[in-house]
Amino acid sequence: MIRFECDYAEGAHDAILKKLSETNFEQTPGYGVDPHCESARALIRTACKAEAADVHFLVGGTQANTVMIASILRPHQGAVCATTGHIAVHETGAIEATGHKVLTIPSDDGKISAEQIRAVHAGHWNDSTHEHMVQPGLVYISHPTENGTTYSKAELEAISAECRALGLPLVVDGARMGYGLAAPDNDLSLADFARLCDMFYIGGTKVGAFFGEAVVITNDALKKDFRYHIKQRGGMLAKGRLLGIQFETLFTDGLYESVSRHAVAQAMRIRKAFETKGIAFRHASMTNQQFPILPDGMKKALAEKYSFSHWEAYGDGHTVVRFCTSWATKEEHVEQLIRDIAVL
Amino acid sequence: MIRFECDYAEGAHDAILKKLSETNFEQTPGYGVDPHCESARALIRTACKAEAADVHFLVGGTQANTVMIASILRPHQGAVCATTGHIAVHETGAIEATGHKVLTIPSDDGKISAEQIRAVHAGHWNDSTHEHMVQPGLVYISHPTENGTTYSKAELEAISAECRALGLPLVVDGARMGYGLAAPDNDLSLADFARLCDMFYIGGTKVGAFFGEAVVITNDALKKDFRYHIKQRGGMLAKGRLLGIQFETLFTDGLYESVSRHAVAQAMRIRKAFETKGIAFRHASMTNQQFPILPDGMKKALAEKYSFSHWEAYGDGHTVVRFCTSWATKEEHVEQLIRDIAVL
Amino acid sequence: MIRFECDYAEGAHDAILKKLSETNFEQTPGYGVDPHCESARALIRTACKAEAADVHFLVGGTQANTVMIASILRPHQGAVCATTGHIAVHETGAIEATGHKVLTIPSDDGKISAEQIRAVHAGHWNDSTHEHMVQPGLVYISHPTENGTTYSKAELEAISAECRALGLPLVVDGARMGYGLAAPDNDLSLADFARLCDMFYIGGTKVGAFFGEAVVITNDALKKDFRYHIKQRGGMLAKGRLLGIQFETLFTDGLYESVSRHAVAQAMRIRKAFETKGIAFRHASMTNQQFPILPDGMKKALAEKYSFSHWEAYGDGHTVVRFCTSWATKEEHVEQLIRDIAVL
Amino acid sequence: MIRFECDYAEGAHDAILKKLSETNFEQTPGYGVDPHCESARALIRTACKAEAADVHFLVGGTQANTVMIASILRPHQGAVCATTGHIAVHETGAIEATGHKVLTIPSDDGKISAEQIRAVHAGHWNDSTHEHMVQPGLVYISHPTENGTTYSKAELEAISAECRALGLPLVVDGARMGYGLAAPDNDLSLADFARLCDMFYIGGTKVGAFFGEAVVITNDALKKDFRYHIKQRGGMLAKGRLLGIQFETLFTDGLYESVSRHAVAQAMRIRKAFETKGIAFRHASMTNQQFPILPDGMKKALAEKYSFSHWEAYGDGHTVVRFCTSWATKEEHVEQLIRDIAVL
Repeated sequence: MIRFECDYAEGAHDAILKKLSETNFEQTPGYGVDPHCESARALIRTACKAEAADVHFLVGGTQANTVMIASILRPHQGAVCATTGHIAVHETGAIEATGHKVLTIPSDDGKISAEQIRAVHAGHWNDSTHEHMVQPGLVYISHPTENGTTYSKAELEAISAECRALGLPLVVDGARMGYGLAAPDNDLSLADFARLCDMFYIGGTKVGAFFGEAVVITNDALKKDFRYHIKQRGGMLAKGRLLGIQFETLFTDGLYESVSRHAVAQAMRIRKAFETKGIAFRHASMTNQQFPILPDGMKKALAEKYSFSHWEAYGDGHTVVRFCTSWATKEEHVEQLIRDIAVL
Repeated sequence: MIRFECDYAEGAHDAILKKLSETNFEQTPGYGVDPHCESARALIRTACKAEAADVHFLVGGTQANTVMIASILRPHQGAVCATTGHIAVHETGAIEATGHKVLTIPSDDGKISAEQIRAVHAGHWNDSTHEHMVQPGLVYISHPTENGTTYSKAELEAISAECRALGLPLVVDGARMGYGLAAPDNDLSLADFARLCDMFYIGGTKVGAFFGEAVVITNDALKKDFRYHIKQRGGMLAKGRLLGIQFETLFTDGLYESVSRHAVAQAMRIRKAFETKGIAFRHASMTNQQFPILPDGMKKALAEKYSFSHWEAYGDGHTVVRFCTSWATKEEHVEQLIRDIAVL
Repeated sequence: MIRFECDYAEGAHDAILKKLSETNFEQTPGYGVDPHCESARALIRTACKAEAADVHFLVGGTQANTVMIASILRPHQGAVCATTGHIAVHETGAIEATGHKVLTIPSDDGKISAEQIRAVHAGHWNDSTHEHMVQPGLVYISHPTENGTTYSKAELEAISAECRALGLPLVVDGARMGYGLAAPDNDLSLADFARLCDMFYIGGTKVGAFFGEAVVITNDALKKDFRYHIKQRGGMLAKGRLLGIQFETLFTDGLYESVSRHAVAQAMRIRKAFETKGIAFRHASMTNQQFPILPDGMKKALAEKYSFSHWEAYGDGHTVVRFCTSWATKEEHVEQLIRDIAVL
Repeated sequence: MIRFECDYAEGAHDAILKKLSETNFEQTPGYGVDPHCESARALIRTACKAEAADVHFLVGGTQANTVMIASILRPHQGAVCATTGHIAVHETGAIEATGHKVLTIPSDDGKISAEQIRAVHAGHWNDSTHEHMVQPGLVYISHPTENGTTYSKAELEAISAECRALGLPLVVDGARMGYGLAAPDNDLSLADFARLCDMFYIGGTKVGAFFGEAVVITNDALKKDFRYHIKQRGGMLAKGRLLGIQFETLFTDGLYESVSRHAVAQAMRIRKAFETKGIAFRHASMTNQQFPILPDGMKKALAEKYSFSHWEAYGDGHTVVRFCTSWATKEEHVEQLIRDIAVL
């Protein structure tokens, strides 16, 4: 069975394993204040062109989202996001567990627009009983989204401008950030995220690391006491240097970019193979997740040799499935898949 | 200005004021264990034909909903309810503040069906990553709903059967329970609610009392330690007898029923007056809230003399508004309104 | 049985009952924005010499404490208070239920000092792992304390200065505020509390009202969105005017002061009766709660005719009990008690 | 600088690094349902002689404590523990952040007794207003404690019997479990913990792993839906096999025991060196943490070459410090330290 079902099926990039091995018996302070974390912070600040940013390392995405959001909101506020947002659907109510409602905006492709944000905000304040409603307190978007789609620079700039006009911090879930930046149609950079958002994270778990997400805070007002929040939510790793070492490695010699490009290139090859067979796609994803709408026969045939995710039913005799590539995807696996698609 | 904007614009029924005055210098223990509370409990158990039920008195509806729901759910569970549900929209995230997500079901008239409940439940358990989703932990409905609509006995029996099959406690928000029971088309009784639900409350605030909601718990498994929850959520009134005295009065000599019938009768007269003028209604409400779709001219004219609520915009030159009657609505006010409608 | 067991055994002062009756059929908007609430706010601002203060009305003390504290703290912060503080002991973990630790300072008489506050603060910041500890976020004191003791102006000024130096808002639980202000040795005024604290409440439930606590916010930074917090925690009374009417009455013609003086005068008479018999007291209370240390025989004899609270065991054959007076205490009951003490 | 300041200064045991490397490109499902986790579960069940136990893997100790405790308690309940308990002092209020109070029992050495547990329980239920207090909902102990002390089998059996009599689940924080089991005076086994407790965890982070704590649930009533709690609290590692691989390695060929014995042997040598110099100890620890009471001169001299933790001030010219050994402590470092102690 060859796995295309997710982007976290393997361990970590060899360079990370090597570095972990080399540094194994160094003695460092715990909790993220060691030299490796400091070095990784410096590298990330440079990559983001944000020398004044605070950078924190957390183990996983749900944790990162929860800590970011709970650190920003007051009790009566909620996080505005797409109905498809990871925090709205697949984090077991982690945000609600910190006391906050997720205020959803309908979305099919996973994206939301500046106009929708303005409308949600207005809907709250125009209600004569606005004090009886949860107050929008921040906007959360994912880039790429859970459906593999991405924001253009123009779209992100519009969202950012709207959020600033409304006084709503903009938070970005970048669990697959690398794959977004590597998309063929991408016109955004980490520096753009640093410039346009208030807080975002750069995902490591799905992009070459064993685990780890780097939270970047550019809004000064949101920096205070962030480490308390990390600790309180169970996110402060005792051997914090493990996170520092991984991000140090990823942000040296362009590794984060190169592994991301590899994954997206493989995804584009798979996409093309399906397209050639006349298969349509559920979402216009130019990133590492592809959502072909497969006829049942093709789905069944492919499932004998490959694992992929069931995404959703799609009318008569068709199903949307997800094929995921990653930093670890082997070219020979992709080639085999392409050959099999071609002859089905 | 004559007020039809809500059903809590006046104080309390004279009988309650009288009883408060008569008992004012009685010395009783606090926190709801006094003779008046005990007497009110007995009267309510009898009215519900539920001699084994636990009865607790709380001050308001948001408090009652929060305490009921937080007492039932485990941390990873959520409350299933209509998108229009009071807990979903107009309680400032009180449920989320206790850590729980509100899992909404689309609804136009405010009601949900047994089929929808089954589908939400199935959607959770069929997801391969169900542990990444909030688990449905109870079902919350309002009767009458926020739109004035009501469940029939057949509908409530179907919901109850479904909930029991799925292991989901059924909780009913009865803030306007009296007005539901007094609806011309009603075929439900308090005893039906006691039989078909696990926990529900009988609203006093909107039905003749200064304040107060009586929570009735019929499911033995949900009775334990309920008073701790009341206290923790700030709902344990020091002079608890004030609640006992009010419900004692409301449940003596059929007062709760008679004031409810009065309110609904007035609402039906107003409904008929609009109907006679060819005005349509947004919701098929047979209870104390009426939602006529008014042309702007008529709306403006009525607003000069009467206060009523803006409900929602409704296409070209029309608005949905809400007229509310209550136990305190004066017949002469209704007659005046009817005359004014007739000539507009 | 004559009750001295608590200060909430009766209903409300006649003047309140009368005013409720007179205003019963007025139609007013709900949720605390009616003319009676506005009038009560103005009267309280004047009494506090704090024209810029925000004033909100809540139903009960646990609710008031919870809303005040949860509105101020960020998630990683806690409330510093005496081990005997009401929030630390007798509110069923209401503060913890909002996510915050109560950081206790040892206290025998119920009071804490500026020095202790400084030490708790220093203990936090001097810990090399301060981010692993709950950060002190505000100071909560009760006046009078749960043991009937009171702060002097010098003590409150020292606490206030320390809190301001440390950046910790000072919050005062004034559930029995009236009885503190009426103490023979009192040198504080409501204006002092307004000047020295950031947020405090003036208790109505125990001082003449059916229920109700008036929260006064003098620190501008803490005013924002307070009504959302009230609503979220279930504290926004639909018929808010009931609170307005009660405080309007209490703050007209010095009623709050006069009923408080009455209660304290009765308590002093009881105190003297015990003293005359050589009975010592557990706490140096000059307010409406008295804590004599009774020999078992006397305790048993008094218990036949009077109800009072068991407070704590006190060595060989003695018990600390609590006698409470209130605005409603009848002089003839006190005289009877005094006679009975004299002959025991 | 040679570090004795904590037991998480290095990476992981070579065997773990080797296994991570060997398995790096295996493709496995995420979230802890892979073959390595299954194998580790089986090994731990065997080590605990608890074939029916559920075993879950979490990344860190604060996370493990929070998930365990929040999964057990109802909202009005609290966790009983020593004043020195990690959850009471050094987890930034993580337990309170889930809504629960930590109910502390005074303790000097870090241990609590069956008698103290009974007394806390009785104190709650004997209070006439017990519903106004947080209800004890479970007992949390650490083994070894934060002060390095350990429970004897007799003590643990007494605590367990008391907890079962009172209906309180017993939860054990075993962050340093290995070092407790390796103590010279230990008479407990993992099987004893499985038999006597309801839920406990076996620490990996401080005992040879990069990170990881294995939660063992032996009480059937507490097993349900535990994975939801892990996910909600941000503790479900995407590449869960990393935890499985580490515990698989630690529980193969007695590695967990042997690295633990190494650490304790080194600690005993250091202890003896101090004893030989007439240095007293703050706590009677036979585990990897040692708390000598150092004269200021000796402290200063040692601090030039070694890092160790300041624990607490100790009267005139003395300080309690902590020396920690671990699985990674080098014998030559210990020998050097012993030589330096000898000549001071």
